[in-house]
Amino acid sequence: MTLSTQPYKGARDFYPEDKRKQKYMFNKLRQVVERYGYEEYDAPILEPLEIYLAKTGEEIVNEQTYVFEDRGGRKVVIRPEMTPTVSRMVAGKRQQLAYPLRWYSIPNLWRYERPQRGRLREHWQLNVDIFGVASTDAELEIIKLVSDIFSAFGADKDMYVINLNSRKLVDYMLNDYLGFDQAEAHAIAKLIDRLHKMETNEFIAKADTAVSAEHREKGSIEKLMTILSANSLKDLPKQLVEHDSSKELQALLDILHNNGITNAKFDVSLMRGFDYYTDIVFEVNDTHPENNRSMMGGGRYDGLVGLFGVDPVPTVGFGWGDVTLANFLDLHHLLPELGSETQLYAILVGDIKSQADDLISQLRAGGVNVAVDWSGRKIGDQIKSAEKKLIGHVIIIGENEISDNNYKIKNLKTGEEQSYDIQQIIDNFKTKQP
Amino acid sequence: MTLSTQPYKGARDFYPEDKRKQKYMFNKLRQVVERYGYEEYDAPILEPLEIYLAKTGEEIVNEQTYVFEDRGGRKVVIRPEMTPTVSRMVAGKRQQLAYPLRWYSIPNLWRYERPQRGRLREHWQLNVDIFGVASTDAELEIIKLVSDIFSAFGADKDMYVINLNSRKLVDYMLNDYLGFDQAEAHAIAKLIDRLHKMETNEFIAKADTAVSAEHREKGSIEKLMTILSANSLKDLPKQLVEHDSSKELQALLDILHNNGITNAKFDVSLMRGFDYYTDIVFEVNDTHPENNRSMMGGGRYDGLVGLFGVDPVPTVGFGWGDVTLANFLDLHHLLPELGSETQLYAILVGDIKSQADDLISQLRAGGVNVAVDWSGRKIGDQIKSAEKKLIGHVIIIGENEISDNNYKIKNLKTGEEQSYDIQQIIDNFKTKQP
Repeated sequence: MTLSTQPYKGARDFYPEDKRKQKYMFNKLRQVVERYGYEEYDAPILEPLEIYLAKTGEEIVNEQTYVFEDRGGRKVVIRPEMTPTVSRMVAGKRQQLAYPLRWYSIPNLWRYERPQRGRLREHWQLNVDIFGVASTDAELEIIKLVSDIFSAFGADKDMYVINLNSRKLVDYMLNDYLGFDQAEAHAIAKLIDRLHKMETNEFIAKADTAVSAEHREKGSIEKLMTILSANSLKDLPKQLVEHDSSKELQALLDILHNNGITNAKFDVSLMRGFDYYTDIVFEVNDTHPENNRSMMGGGRYDGLVGLFGVDPVPTVGFGWGDVTLANFLDLHHLLPELGSETQLYAILVGDIKSQADDLISQLRAGGVNVAVDWSGRKIGDQIKSAEKKLIGHVIIIGENEISDNNYKIKNLKTGEEQSYDIQQIIDNFKTKQP
Repeated sequence: MTLSTQPYKGARDFYPEDKRKQKYMFNKLRQVVERYGYEEYDAPILEPLEIYLAKTGEEIVNEQTYVFEDRGGRKVVIRPEMTPTVSRMVAGKRQQLAYPLRWYSIPNLWRYERPQRGRLREHWQLNVDIFGVASTDAELEIIKLVSDIFSAFGADKDMYVINLNSRKLVDYMLNDYLGFDQAEAHAIAKLIDRLHKMETNEFIAKADTAVSAEHREKGSIEKLMTILSANSLKDLPKQLVEHDSSKELQALLDILHNNGITNAKFDVSLMRGFDYYTDIVFEVNDTHPENNRSMMGGGRYDGLVGLFGVDPVPTVGFGWGDVTLANFLDLHHLLPELGSETQLYAILVGDIKSQADDLISQLRAGGVNVAVDWSGRKIGDQIKSAEKKLIGHVIIIGENEISDNNYKIKNLKTGEEQSYDIQQIIDNFKTKQP
């Protein structure tokens, strides 16, 4: 029997050139979030099914999770998202933790869905959450942090838009201003979530069937369409503009603009898929026409920690997937050329393994990453191996080189050759200590 | 309903203080393996069941894996080890890759077993493999690398022993020298694997029942016991000493000793659990009496890549679990005190959020990790939060401080206070760029 070399469908193998790209992205993410004082945590990839049933959203749990029974009869899930997990962990040490609590993680997550552009069955996701801040200082910090991540990757403000909305405002609009009952409001909210995926006529037709005859007669859907055409909070009907949730969101937008985050804007149609959000929500969209889907999103969810039997904790957080981030960086040409972490490829000439090994040990002790070609092939073939591995330089080690302490080093990019003694090699090639 | 805050049984939550310890360990591991020119790869945590059926070992696959059917009817496994995966990946690009190929990964692995000291259901494991080197240059490099990892953690040679054996020598001993048939040899090998877990009498009784009456009469078990009492290759019967596999292993041990790796020694009882090893195998044991189990192990497995329908590739590799490593470092007091990555905790005095934010942005842009306490609580309470988070210093920011560009910074460990301007803070606290 011959086994297949393909990875599991919808998931990726990371060969070193792929892993290098991922590490570049994750290192930048870590660097920025740690600048803001966030600390990394992690958790098992398996979770009990229960923690998703309450708030994750039916479609995801029933149709898109990897759920199975373990050998002890427990229903377990390969996590589809990190928010229930981090809420569980905070609840577990609710009293011992010091607030504001700033946590981040870059877990891998699994969803059973048809693989497509920007959506795979396994992806990694930066999760950043601040716990214990009830004021919009939390939203402000989080959105500044998101903006700083884009800047760290070299992105300009015209490459992406930060859309904001308020669940409280949406609830007030649907329930109080438009007067929908709970079922109508729920159906309309789900429709609005898909507003940009259909024609206006189709949307109106579907909205008409989602509400009672009374609402159709008194023009509630026309009122809704007027609201959905608003480009800023000020365009909304006066009753909505004057609602507290609207004022709070406007104040946040003003501070963001004052902080130079001019690409933050109100988007009345922004709903977010999860049931646990309670107030301001946000999403970032790539402005590139080939990638015009949501890249990342988040918001305030003040109720989730409390589900675990402790006092609730006000929380703002977001998730940012590696696939959408990589697509963004690719499309905007923001990924640098990434070579191997190995600085020198050692080519041995003659029967000098033992002496060469001493030398190479010294280089490594000095902080240089050195790979040795043990094959004894022709020098040209060994150089080709180094080139294929994207290693920057080769060092030739023979009897004369060792006795003279003078080594030829060839730059494989420029073809340039230079001679150094051991100490000079260390000074020129040593890596920074982590 | 109140949800439990416990993680899934046998798996661990990593709160920031736990994650910090893991990151410390993984950074050291990465640093040393990259010194030797190894490049990081990764792969999905789910694999098709087939790739484990051939060589992983019956007990692990049948009793200890997390195996389930996905929604499309495919049998999938949460990987219990990385070796079949890395073999699959090498086979997938057999022709394009440049040899010697040096790869490493630190995947999380799952086994369904009763949690106990040193064994959990989820653990991480450094996997290091060199592909394409048929000579013992590969074993030499790999064992030197293992020894360098111990040194990087500050371990002395008397804290651990590197045991080596040879599958070829064991096969020759059981099949040719002792003349056991295949079933007998298999049973005896399994017994030897558990030699140190039973009394000598029990071992002899079990060995007696595992072989034919003829073998019992002609004293094969007595011969076996003599062999098992050997402390070095030279103690073995002459016919074994002169076997090629024995000479090769002795030559490797000699070079290791010449390289200062004086704690490497022959262990005739070393079997290793996996069926895929083909030649020299090794294991490291902690010499601490409270942790006297195998910490890590590996060996040569020249046949695994070939199972995927390509030409075989000679391979030497090892796996090293994070739980056994952490136990080792704990018992030998080799873990440093690890504080937060956040360098400054900012305490705001008065209504100065906006100006404080400007200052903090400058510090972050300069490379300092700063967390802000947005609470407005008493200064003493804010300092307590910083202490709980193991942050090194607090900075007090009020109106006067900003107008004078002069900030008091308190070292939370020593209690010492010092005043700096912005540039001095940046110079003193900025992190190294990754």
